[in-house]
Amino acid sequence: MVWDPEFEVAFHPKTVAIVGVSRRPHFFDFVANLQTAGFCGRIYPINPRAVGEEYRGLKFYPDLVSVPEPIDLVIISTPRETVPAVLEDCIAANAKNIHIFAAGFREVGDARGIELEDKVVEIANRGGLRILGPNCMGLHVPASRITTWDELDPESGSVAFVSQSGGHAGQVVREGGRFGIHFSKVISFGNAAVLDSTDFLEYLATDQETKLICMYIEGVKDGSRFTRLVKEINRGKPVIIWKGGLTESGSRAVASHTGSLGGEREVWNAFYKQTGAVSVGSMEELLDVTMAFLYLRTPASCRAALIGAGGGNSVAGADICARSGLYLPTLTEVTLKELGSFIPPEGTMIKNPLDIGVVFIDINMLLRSLDPIAADPLIDSIIFALPLRMLPRSITDSWADDARLGRMGVVWKELRRGVFDNLVKFDRENVYRKPIVIVLQQSAGGFSSEFQEQVQQEFLEAGIPVYLSLKRASRAMAKLIQYHEFRREAQ
Amino acid sequence: MVWDPEFEVAFHPKTVAIVGVSRRPHFFDFVANLQTAGFCGRIYPINPRAVGEEYRGLKFYPDLVSVPEPIDLVIISTPRETVPAVLEDCIAANAKNIHIFAAGFREVGDARGIELEDKVVEIANRGGLRILGPNCMGLHVPASRITTWDELDPESGSVAFVSQSGGHAGQVVREGGRFGIHFSKVISFGNAAVLDSTDFLEYLATDQETKLICMYIEGVKDGSRFTRLVKEINRGKPVIIWKGGLTESGSRAVASHTGSLGGEREVWNAFYKQTGAVSVGSMEELLDVTMAFLYLRTPASCRAALIGAGGGNSVAGADICARSGLYLPTLTEVTLKELGSFIPPEGTMIKNPLDIGVVFIDINMLLRSLDPIAADPLIDSIIFALPLRMLPRSITDSWADDARLGRMGVVWKELRRGVFDNLVKFDRENVYRKPIVIVLQQSAGGFSSEFQEQVQQEFLEAGIPVYLSLKRASRAMAKLIQYHEFRREAQ
Repeated sequence: MVWDPEFEVAFHPKTVAIVGVSRRPHFFDFVANLQTAGFCGRIYPINPRAVGEEYRGLKFYPDLVSVPEPIDLVIISTPRETVPAVLEDCIAANAKNIHIFAAGFREVGDARGIELEDKVVEIANRGGLRILGPNCMGLHVPASRITTWDELDPESGSVAFVSQSGGHAGQVVREGGRFGIHFSKVISFGNAAVLDSTDFLEYLATDQETKLICMYIEGVKDGSRFTRLVKEINRGKPVIIWKGGLTESGSRAVASHTGSLGGEREVWNAFYKQTGAVSVGSMEELLDVTMAFLYLRTPASCRAALIGAGGGNSVAGADICARSGLYLPTLTEVTLKELGSFIPPEGTMIKNPLDIGVVFIDINMLLRSLDPIAADPLIDSIIFALPLRMLPRSITDSWADDARLGRMGVVWKELRRGVFDNLVKFDRENVYRKPIVIVLQQSAGGFSSEFQEQVQQEFLEAGIPVYLSLKRASRAMAKLIQYHEFRREAQ
Repeated sequence: MVWDPEFEVAFHPKTVAIVGVSRRPHFFDFVANLQTAGFCGRIYPINPRAVGEEYRGLKFYPDLVSVPEPIDLVIISTPRETVPAVLEDCIAANAKNIHIFAAGFREVGDARGIELEDKVVEIANRGGLRILGPNCMGLHVPASRITTWDELDPESGSVAFVSQSGGHAGQVVREGGRFGIHFSKVISFGNAAVLDSTDFLEYLATDQETKLICMYIEGVKDGSRFTRLVKEINRGKPVIIWKGGLTESGSRAVASHTGSLGGEREVWNAFYKQTGAVSVGSMEELLDVTMAFLYLRTPASCRAALIGAGGGNSVAGADICARSGLYLPTLTEVTLKELGSFIPPEGTMIKNPLDIGVVFIDINMLLRSLDPIAADPLIDSIIFALPLRMLPRSITDSWADDARLGRMGVVWKELRRGVFDNLVKFDRENVYRKPIVIVLQQSAGGFSSEFQEQVQQEFLEAGIPVYLSLKRASRAMAKLIQYHEFRREAQ
């Protein structure tokens, strides 16, 4: 362990040196990406064969010791054989924070790769180097405008993502914003030759900007330290973990990807049980669950009301909720009577799920329905299933002008303008304190549009999370509820 | 049971009478929908209060007996109280094929609804009426241009869909084409007061146009007849069944939707085991599995090769395949050696999954890779995972002109024009006889576009099924393999 509080400087560097910059634009162009992201510090491209030339307005340097000021962060992007020499140069230049982007080490599985990775570890220990990687994408910190990706969500947030896969880290950086998720720090650490997930956990435990920690893990070097840390941190900051390679095929893939030992499924099950960390099984679920943690007041129990349209969909919805661990109890007699007093019985189901599609085409009926459902003591959360295809594209387009759908156009217009506030009232203004979730039901063909994104963003801005299927919504809600049940029981 | 071979005429009617047509356009406008679909027979709107008027160029009739020729199909769209009288009118007019669209019967659960449904059954038995419903959408037959929906896939196909939910039937009609699925007959039958799923199975068993039968079932009246029929038919025509309401909440929803008895999960498990019918759990899976049956040669086993890009994605992919029941064996030494001779080891994984994203940006490498993988005796199917976001929108758009992505633009262009033929060769021209599946990896946010649809259609036209996630692809492939294993063992 070479952990050091000085590692903080790596997240807020004033100077970044990049070793192995080409003379011409290339695929992983860290200089271009830093400039595009608006990094305000100084960038030093290193390439001994390009001295005297410039790239994107920056002078090339032959090596790290020639750089005229202290280097806060070094990115190494050279062939694997040259990496040990570059690390020696780091020691000579007193540069301690290093991201080895270069691949071709333990993950390749050949003798030379393993030998080189052992050499990296030896030099790091000798020189006190804090190394990310090899074989990783390094750091993405919106507040510092540093990133190795060519896309940067400029908005800082409260979520940290610690990932052993650069691809997964990149996807989170690209897609987080669409889920209303913004990041404090994204750390891609690949082979974990020197710094491992446990080191980042220790750092993030006390990081003021981070309120929630997400992880993609393939293997862990010190299992008992990892378990102790997660158990401790999870009491205050929820820790959401995607463990890759829990099947036999997946475990073999892990060995080839980051050279980690995959670990047994039983061991991980015991880990989750002991720590209360939230287990997710895919990128999709990681984003879904994180959105639930960020946007939902915690439901008091797993008892939910499901409001949607269509009898077959109600049956499917009940099955989906039950499989996810949400319970759809029969509403109280008072609620059923109140709803039955103004909703016609034909073509509807005043049960739970509520097949009362009529509320989506009559704004008054929607408002009148919400009140008794939200007040029902048997219900702790409300899920609205809105079929995307039934919503007019915009309040001015031809669909909304269509005589048959015009009424819905009017309702949707009011929904967007006014009811959002009304819906939020239940969630935010402390009337019922019951969380509301929107499910935008897409086609099974997955066809969506900019319109879908627009609808999602409008709801998110109103503080209401939007899911693209009931399965994803109910699974995420169930995980949130389980987390808080664990915390209550652990107290 | 009032089954009769004369029911055939309901699927190819020359005359349709619609009872309860409004004077003005309205939401379920069966007259408009039949006209829009291009129905060539005669349509008779019935409304005693509108006699002397016209709707969409058609003269209103006061009742069925006034219609001047034999009526092949009657659609009843009146309030529930009037339905028995309309049925008596059917008997008087000697109209035997009836679709009761009207709802408000057993599914409502009130005494009057049950009484009225019992009355419907009594009249049907007395008059020998073949009744679909009540509470259903009836028939959709592209070849006859009859439909109750406002959208019609004009292309006839070989798949029948028998659905107790009108909403699900409508979704199939809308979305089937996007999955390359076209229908012989879609039958929505709601409460099944008179004709039940078993009656339609008997009909479809000998229907020349139908090669594959999909069903959405909430309950079955005659379980042993149903089991016997499915077992028999499934030997020749695959039967794919989505049973709704297998959880407790779902079962309650079923009672409210179509008034069916839901049935125990154990009973249905035994049913699937005995009949070999393919079990699916959602609309999405129903369409995915049907596409696999239509487009894939049956793999000889569950051993597959997964070709994709990204280490983390490969780990996730291996986990997903394993959970679906596909096995990703290590490739033979010969294959690994051949691939290793031209694919660089750094940043790739020449294992299975194959993390060789390089083949997607170098057309020659793609072609060179396909050959040894397809020839590997340990592999019985090939899955390509293509990240949608890495494909240029079109060969002329700015992304393709981008210096960094231009090469991929060229490759994609060739992929579209030439490699399709090449890929198809493996599948169709009997070279390796190993099925190929494309997975278009979307974002977790579900964002897609017309571009996605275009890519899907191009592959489908080349005979290659396209799935929107590896989970959906591997699950569908596994179901196809299991079906054929059952048939082999049953022989």
